[in-house]
Amino acid sequence: AQSSSVTIFGVLDVGVQRLTNGNKTLNLESIDGLQTSRIGFRGREDLGGGLSASFHLEGAIGPDVGSGGDWRRRATVSVASKDAGELRLGRDYTPTFWNISKFNAFGTNGVGAASNLVYGFDGASSTAKTVIRSDNSVGYFLPDNLGGVYGQAMVAAGEGSTGRYVGARLGWAGNGLDVALGVSETTNTAAGAKFKVVNLGGSYTVGALKLLGLVHNSKQTTREQKNLVIGAHYALGSGIVRASFVNAQSRNSANGEDYTGKLFALGYVHNLSKRTSLYSTISQVNNSKTGRFLIPGGSAIALGDDSRGIEAGIYHSF
Amino acid sequence: AQSSSVTIFGVLDVGVQRLTNGNKTLNLESIDGLQTSRIGFRGREDLGGGLSASFHLEGAIGPDVGSGGDWRRRATVSVASKDAGELRLGRDYTPTFWNISKFNAFGTNGVGAASNLVYGFDGASSTAKTVIRSDNSVGYFLPDNLGGVYGQAMVAAGEGSTGRYVGARLGWAGNGLDVALGVSETTNTAAGAKFKVVNLGGSYTVGALKLLGLVHNSKQTTREQKNLVIGAHYALGSGIVRASFVNAQSRNSANGEDYTGKLFALGYVHNLSKRTSLYSTISQVNNSKTGRFLIPGGSAIALGDDSRGIEAGIYHSF
Amino acid sequence: AQSSSVTIFGVLDVGVQRLTNGNKTLNLESIDGLQTSRIGFRGREDLGGGLSASFHLEGAIGPDVGSGGDWRRRATVSVASKDAGELRLGRDYTPTFWNISKFNAFGTNGVGAASNLVYGFDGASSTAKTVIRSDNSVGYFLPDNLGGVYGQAMVAAGEGSTGRYVGARLGWAGNGLDVALGVSETTNTAAGAKFKVVNLGGSYTVGALKLLGLVHNSKQTTREQKNLVIGAHYALGSGIVRASFVNAQSRNSANGEDYTGKLFALGYVHNLSKRTSLYSTISQVNNSKTGRFLIPGGSAIALGDDSRGIEAGIYHSF
Repeated sequence: AQSSSVTIFGVLDVGVQRLTNGNKTLNLESIDGLQTSRIGFRGREDLGGGLSASFHLEGAIGPDVGSGGDWRRRATVSVASKDAGELRLGRDYTPTFWNISKFNAFGTNGVGAASNLVYGFDGASSTAKTVIRSDNSVGYFLPDNLGGVYGQAMVAAGEGSTGRYVGARLGWAGNGLDVALGVSETTNTAAGAKFKVVNLGGSYTVGALKLLGLVHNSKQTTREQKNLVIGAHYALGSGIVRASFVNAQSRNSANGEDYTGKLFALGYVHNLSKRTSLYSTISQVNNSKTGRFLIPGGSAIALGDDSRGIEAGIYHSF
Repeated sequence: AQSSSVTIFGVLDVGVQRLTNGNKTLNLESIDGLQTSRIGFRGREDLGGGLSASFHLEGAIGPDVGSGGDWRRRATVSVASKDAGELRLGRDYTPTFWNISKFNAFGTNGVGAASNLVYGFDGASSTAKTVIRSDNSVGYFLPDNLGGVYGQAMVAAGEGSTGRYVGARLGWAGNGLDVALGVSETTNTAAGAKFKVVNLGGSYTVGALKLLGLVHNSKQTTREQKNLVIGAHYALGSGIVRASFVNAQSRNSANGEDYTGKLFALGYVHNLSKRTSLYSTISQVNNSKTGRFLIPGGSAIALGDDSRGIEAGIYHSF
Repeated sequence: AQSSSVTIFGVLDVGVQRLTNGNKTLNLESIDGLQTSRIGFRGREDLGGGLSASFHLEGAIGPDVGSGGDWRRRATVSVASKDAGELRLGRDYTPTFWNISKFNAFGTNGVGAASNLVYGFDGASSTAKTVIRSDNSVGYFLPDNLGGVYGQAMVAAGEGSTGRYVGARLGWAGNGLDVALGVSETTNTAAGAKFKVVNLGGSYTVGALKLLGLVHNSKQTTREQKNLVIGAHYALGSGIVRASFVNAQSRNSANGEDYTGKLFALGYVHNLSKRTSLYSTISQVNNSKTGRFLIPGGSAIALGDDSRGIEAGIYHSF
């Protein structure tokens, strides 16, 4: 119970945002242009013999309205061995989420995020509650001494309801290259329908340039969504230029239709220090005639309308 | 992400309180006799060249029932320059609030607080959601090297709803004197009605005595409330005697009436240390025939009835 | 406001649990097999002359779903004197709770806890809101220099609703023995019906063995529950074997019946360090023909059915 054993960490990221869906424009204060605002506590105890125990508590903050209070970003306890890997229990990110987050020029935050199109079906986020994280999970992580091979597996209890999850991720990183494959299956309806995800992503860094790519397929019964994400980071001065293109195809959507959407995003992050940045991003989503993809947070969108967003903000981590 | 860069701070202030409205008396445990119970985290990063970044997270606590969890007292991120001032984004106090808080012998807490009458219309607190704080705000603060002149301005987005705020405060402090003027306008109904505040306050310290005064006007369409607040602090032994008188005039209230209320308060704060005090306050509100001003927290009040309160508590800050 | 004066502390305790009520089995992730998962902040200020001030904020965490955010485990401020004892205000544990918690081989957590039967009436937890803690309390604690005698008293305001509490606990500890008596009365209905608790518990430690015993009676009007709890801890290797038997008799229950239940529990705690343990517990509740006692968290139980639970988990404190 020494405070010295606990690290307090977090992010405050607040900006101004202008979202236009069709001809309706809304001005907003945004809370996650670069990373989601958050606060967390974590600690690690060395148990000797290569064993350790650790905990991680992390909750989102909405600095625009002062919301917060839960630990729904992550709430886990772990026992780990240097050679045998880590056993982790609690609410945690799903293995399949990490490919969306890592192999995507804008991560999963802000108007340019590929996740604006990737998450769920029909342009709606979080169709399955395990797209990002899972309650009631038991996870296993490979040790980090496998020559660049990394991986994890997770099972999560449905506790008599939906949300039973089984998934895994396996990757390799080295020589500037990083590639990983993820697969998962979630029991997503009371009748037992499965929400299935397969994704394969990679990045390659050469000098100031980092290229990122991801293919991501989601499926439930006959409904299906296919995503292709291509992006780049380019180190420029004390900052990074970021660019991304996302293609999304929705087949046999809720009302039986097929449609597509394309997201184009460009942004710049100006680093004032390792902990503090100013940033701006511009993004546009073009829909096919019955498409309903959008940058979330704005007005309702009419089928086929474009969605546009621009934002500028302050990112500060602690 | 070093815990050393984060300061944990807060207040636990709990007392026993007896409130009498008309002939109905209620015994309560109070949670903000001297200051509102709270917990917060804040930090500041020096960026060099007179620049800095900082964050501030602060949420109220209800130690009587163990409530808490949000950051609705303040949740902001800032970039500041020694010479150019501070840009601050997030949920924050409004400029017009500070005059109510600073030029008032009991601040905005406890049975003796002028805010018991000042806030909102018709004796009801928080008629406008920007009386104390505003969501979605962008604020600017003057630097502190202007020879005693201080000031701030704030705009806040309504995000398609009510609560759009524009306000500012300008003051001067020196030679024991402190005076400040505040003005604001909030879009307070879906139809666009404006809630307008103008207040002018000051304090003057001479030896053991500090005199405080405030005039505060609130207006929305034809409804109007005028307040006059006069108070004093007198350092006595290791404590402070506090006294306050508040006059409140309500014109064209919700049901078209005009009425008045007067608050008289007297209290003593006994400091056990810089961080810990014991205190007691007694207060009385007298209403005109149809007045409905009261000390909040007790039973419902009948028109024209008096409201009386007495409390004693422990204040501890960390 | 120095962070050095604040201690951050907590517990993450997550396990896997299998609960069977009658013939219905549910697999769950558990969050309090050994101790309730929690986070807290506390601090103490020396005021000189044997006086001190302190605060304690502590809230439960549900790491299975990432819940948390309040301080409902405890939220108190205290002023204490070495010789005169401690005055404590806020939300706190009731005196009568401590006998349930201390003189019970499994404390009040997990499938083997005596509290599964002891709390409230009719097998339902928290019939009175003061069984564990009380809102709006004012507590007094004897100083710790009374030759092994310890004690506390609490009154809590109902604030115009139910929950008015008066209670006390008096004990003596020394020479391996610890005994304490608790009594309380809570105004538990709008009509003023009293919920009354009397409990007497003790423990005796000799070498590796600790024996624990408790009698606990709860009564409201004609309804009554009597509990007898017998348990033992046995230090074995780097761990502790725990065993418990609980008898519960319910008289004149909600539907007028009398019934009984018996809980048998056995478990092992393997300590990896002072802060980290692995544990497993198995427990069974046998009901008389109309009994409805159970291990909480599983499926609904039919009258007279048995309730069985097994769990294994990781406990980590910080």
